[in-house]
Amino acid sequence: MNKKISVGLIGMGRMGLIYAEDLSYRVANVRLTAVSDVNPAAEEKAGELGIPKWYPDYHDMLADRFIDAVIIVTPTHTHREIVIAAAEHGKAIFCEKPLAISLDEGLEMQQAIAENGVFFHMGLMRRFDRSYRAAKEKIEEGVIGRPVVFKASTRDPFRPSLEYLDPRHSGGIILDMGIHDIDLAHWLIGGISQVYTTGGILAYPEVSEVGDLDNAIITLNFKSGALGVIDLTRRGVYGYDIRTEILGTEGAVQIGYLRETPLRVMTEEGVMHDAVPYFTQRFEQAYIDQLRNFVEHLMLDKEPSINCADGIAGLEVALAAVQSYKEKRPVTLS
Amino acid sequence: MNKKISVGLIGMGRMGLIYAEDLSYRVANVRLTAVSDVNPAAEEKAGELGIPKWYPDYHDMLADRFIDAVIIVTPTHTHREIVIAAAEHGKAIFCEKPLAISLDEGLEMQQAIAENGVFFHMGLMRRFDRSYRAAKEKIEEGVIGRPVVFKASTRDPFRPSLEYLDPRHSGGIILDMGIHDIDLAHWLIGGISQVYTTGGILAYPEVSEVGDLDNAIITLNFKSGALGVIDLTRRGVYGYDIRTEILGTEGAVQIGYLRETPLRVMTEEGVMHDAVPYFTQRFEQAYIDQLRNFVEHLMLDKEPSINCADGIAGLEVALAAVQSYKEKRPVTLS
Amino acid sequence: MNKKISVGLIGMGRMGLIYAEDLSYRVANVRLTAVSDVNPAAEEKAGELGIPKWYPDYHDMLADRFIDAVIIVTPTHTHREIVIAAAEHGKAIFCEKPLAISLDEGLEMQQAIAENGVFFHMGLMRRFDRSYRAAKEKIEEGVIGRPVVFKASTRDPFRPSLEYLDPRHSGGIILDMGIHDIDLAHWLIGGISQVYTTGGILAYPEVSEVGDLDNAIITLNFKSGALGVIDLTRRGVYGYDIRTEILGTEGAVQIGYLRETPLRVMTEEGVMHDAVPYFTQRFEQAYIDQLRNFVEHLMLDKEPSINCADGIAGLEVALAAVQSYKEKRPVTLS
Amino acid sequence: MNKKISVGLIGMGRMGLIYAEDLSYRVANVRLTAVSDVNPAAEEKAGELGIPKWYPDYHDMLADRFIDAVIIVTPTHTHREIVIAAAEHGKAIFCEKPLAISLDEGLEMQQAIAENGVFFHMGLMRRFDRSYRAAKEKIEEGVIGRPVVFKASTRDPFRPSLEYLDPRHSGGIILDMGIHDIDLAHWLIGGISQVYTTGGILAYPEVSEVGDLDNAIITLNFKSGALGVIDLTRRGVYGYDIRTEILGTEGAVQIGYLRETPLRVMTEEGVMHDAVPYFTQRFEQAYIDQLRNFVEHLMLDKEPSINCADGIAGLEVALAAVQSYKEKRPVTLS
Repeated sequence: MNKKISVGLIGMGRMGLIYAEDLSYRVANVRLTAVSDVNPAAEEKAGELGIPKWYPDYHDMLADRFIDAVIIVTPTHTHREIVIAAAEHGKAIFCEKPLAISLDEGLEMQQAIAENGVFFHMGLMRRFDRSYRAAKEKIEEGVIGRPVVFKASTRDPFRPSLEYLDPRHSGGIILDMGIHDIDLAHWLIGGISQVYTTGGILAYPEVSEVGDLDNAIITLNFKSGALGVIDLTRRGVYGYDIRTEILGTEGAVQIGYLRETPLRVMTEEGVMHDAVPYFTQRFEQAYIDQLRNFVEHLMLDKEPSINCADGIAGLEVALAAVQSYKEKRPVTLS
Repeated sequence: MNKKISVGLIGMGRMGLIYAEDLSYRVANVRLTAVSDVNPAAEEKAGELGIPKWYPDYHDMLADRFIDAVIIVTPTHTHREIVIAAAEHGKAIFCEKPLAISLDEGLEMQQAIAENGVFFHMGLMRRFDRSYRAAKEKIEEGVIGRPVVFKASTRDPFRPSLEYLDPRHSGGIILDMGIHDIDLAHWLIGGISQVYTTGGILAYPEVSEVGDLDNAIITLNFKSGALGVIDLTRRGVYGYDIRTEILGTEGAVQIGYLRETPLRVMTEEGVMHDAVPYFTQRFEQAYIDQLRNFVEHLMLDKEPSINCADGIAGLEVALAAVQSYKEKRPVTLS
Repeated sequence: MNKKISVGLIGMGRMGLIYAEDLSYRVANVRLTAVSDVNPAAEEKAGELGIPKWYPDYHDMLADRFIDAVIIVTPTHTHREIVIAAAEHGKAIFCEKPLAISLDEGLEMQQAIAENGVFFHMGLMRRFDRSYRAAKEKIEEGVIGRPVVFKASTRDPFRPSLEYLDPRHSGGIILDMGIHDIDLAHWLIGGISQVYTTGGILAYPEVSEVGDLDNAIITLNFKSGALGVIDLTRRGVYGYDIRTEILGTEGAVQIGYLRETPLRVMTEEGVMHDAVPYFTQRFEQAYIDQLRNFVEHLMLDKEPSINCADGIAGLEVALAAVQSYKEKRPVTLS
Repeated sequence: MNKKISVGLIGMGRMGLIYAEDLSYRVANVRLTAVSDVNPAAEEKAGELGIPKWYPDYHDMLADRFIDAVIIVTPTHTHREIVIAAAEHGKAIFCEKPLAISLDEGLEMQQAIAENGVFFHMGLMRRFDRSYRAAKEKIEEGVIGRPVVFKASTRDPFRPSLEYLDPRHSGGIILDMGIHDIDLAHWLIGGISQVYTTGGILAYPEVSEVGDLDNAIITLNFKSGALGVIDLTRRGVYGYDIRTEILGTEGAVQIGYLRETPLRVMTEEGVMHDAVPYFTQRFEQAYIDQLRNFVEHLMLDKEPSINCADGIAGLEVALAAVQSYKEKRPVTLS
């Protein structure tokens, strides 16, 4: 382990910048040697962070034989092409969620990864959050007995751009936001056999322009018989509110909090505190811990902690949930 | 208002005893003059509380011309017969939730009430809980903008007897427990147009003997376009956990708490506190406030705060939710 | 136990009305047969509650041989005279805190109680609050190890009348408010050997007219070596805030809460909830439970749960704390 | 601002390592070019972090003309000598709290800083914690009216080594721990005119070997008339518990929290969550933000945010509090 992994980062948007800073300052045994983004602003940013190289075209980065691994943080609809190309170049791959916007794409990617025998980590940072890990441990220790009900809520404080929301780019609210909760359901409880979705455009009328929803509720049936429900909203104006709960036959675990700063102000009006502003605060450490895990497993020749099959499993459920919304009926997973 | 209302209580089971004590000690302008229950233990209890009369047969109580009003706290499947008889005797009526176990029964009751012009209050105590009332005020003041998502969770710490659970007696989990959440949805948001239910027997296998569920999740679509979800469980071993939340375009209100006693114990194991034991603690004051409201409205010739139509509205949604579970598809309300 | 205790209530001010209602409606085996107050409004109030007799002069009530016990809720400076007269008439006595405004008075009262062999309960309702009782149990079970630090805070939301505040009537802030915390210190930890007090008039300048303080901090040394601190304020505008904490060698217990209604309102401004309005909410049940305990111990010939010696112990510490403030130095208790 | 500040770190103990990592990875515009510690382990650690130079003797570091600033994180009793030497070498200085163990030392340091005109930042990281900053803003905006009572509690989960505790090295519990709370009192409320201290050895008998206390309570009188109290313990076994509260005439602000991970486990035993483990979690970001502030103010020729006079002000109060404990009487500050 006396050599650093040389990493290239593809995508320097909002998430890309977070990854660039984490890789530059907070992850050991890695050296961020190049970034790729068609936007020339990426070059300047790379300079600020002391990253030596900028590739406007990611193919050139893949051709760079000094790069061991690529971190893909581009819009979802581009994942297929980039992952396959990276696999063909033999690069180790970290790909942000969700895997792809269709199952066919996901299966193609899985095949390319398998054929080229490359290391592939599916980015789903919540699994690295300390409280989710502790919850999983409690469940596995049997503290709550047999899981009976899974509940999850994901609320963004405001909507991203319409371009981002466009289901052709991000997969839409269920794929883009819901994939986190679907993955947690799968990870914490197990396989899902049926889904039913309802939703609507209730907060941002303009979302109809791109054919997406801004609110959705997805009911889950697990293969074990357990039940689940996920609610998603693009407009929780009071803050970034992520809650997950598993009720079992002998207890329950709850993950979630509303209060960011440990300050309370008490006046005749009442008692007031702040809320968590955004995912960048809530999951700051989870992103770092996930990258550390990626690097460590890659260096030690261990299996990736989250693999392509996990990405496909979530994708299948999310796509079934989209289908359920469209067909206004429960959809059974094969 | 210088005369006390003379009240007869029909049903002296678990809930009946609570009502008997509240009417004896905590509600002004009322005199509990008689109780009726086939069980002779009711006579002894009446004696302890200083209630003068006990009628094994409620018909005899209805024939008592000194009784102004009856409070009905018998099993749900008996409501129809008793309410109709009470209406025909011209008594003012308070009937615990749910109204009945079928829509036909409910409509018959409504007709008898209308034809006899009697005062009828539908017992749904949550509407009298201070926090639910405050939440309704906040919503009506526009604090949270336009309601978008309604969420409710009702968890009992343990199951009642199988006899009680039997859908032929209580209506089953959705009617018996869910009616509270359905009524809140209706009261706080408005009319419901579609429901979808999933559920299972996940905690108490013996529940299958009576043909009920022990867990259920009901998705709601409101006429306004708003979405909703209710989850119900008969086994939340850690305590009585009731939570309701309305997310709007400009904020949210949350009702619910887990901590009963203001004591925390902090050791190397962590920080520990207790939970709310049961509905008798959580809604103790709401039951009293509802009875006070019943008495006050009756004395002042005001309309009942919750009427038979409210009972029927909830019943329709609950029955559609039961049908949805059986037919495994979303059910549209007419 | 088949006879009800006949009780007379002396003092129908703010606290007296609470006692009158509790005794009328919420305490079994007792009959409130008379009230005494020089204010004729007491007669009307007695009528509303169905209390048969009103005595403008309490001596006449003491002469009433049908009265078994008296509940004394008059201003502190009148306790001595009333308690001694009641003892001489052989009445069982419940006397609200604090015992008296001087140690001499307290000792005279103790002597009269002893000489006449009457049952005497010192009213200190916090000891009957469920969380304080649970805390005491935890301490006695050894959950927190050996107690090391006692902390208590009592905040009233607004000041009573200047007449009430006058140290010649209520004993002043340390005696009137602090006695609760001092009694808890004594009950939960043990004897106190030294006190040091600082204080000031910081919120209500007019308090100087009656020679009292509106804020005070009292440091305690326990005989065991443990340390303590009590802070008192007459102006915690946000609500009634009572907190007590015991830190031990193996953990800590905390009693206290800020949130009254289980409603939270979340908007872009933050997360808001209410606070506990007043002692009438915070200790409503404790007052009832204390009266029940008084009645039960009296009927069953058990020792009173809090006796005159407890009242004197608290009085000694409170008076030493007043002396410390005046002499600006720590005062050792004999 | 296009040149990085070259920094040398003196002291590579527990705190020194935190500073070394923060300066290496989390603070912009700075380059940690050297560390100094007599312990040769420091050289190895420097190597791991890629810090080019290690000086066993800090005098050699001070003689290095490429070093612009020094960060002093050595035991308190060594501050005087190092700060004076650094000032004489014209280095900008960051010195961890407390300033020194005697007032004479502090005044000598102040003189050396003044005479050499060097930039001096007194390390007191709590002032950079987001919640303390927000509290200060609220107070300055007048949200709580005029401050009346200051309360602070500092609890370490376990004791440091006896060598560290020795008042000749750290200044003892009041200087070492209490300086944080004293500085907050001064910063948030203003000048302190009198102190009274009580304390004891209640948790670790062995602390008597070095002549220190393991628990102390300090009462404060502010020049404004406001009151204050600080309690300190070396043994809060449940976690690192830091609480500060300011009560004003119109409200209050509270800073503090007990829950580290957003996970709750609910079983029949109750509801359980974890606590904050240590200062390294609670103030992780505050340490970073303080270093960023130091670097920014130094580069932009701004005054240091906390200067030597602030260090002396806290030292005077802490030493008066020590004297009060020894003389068992309140001590007035000149």
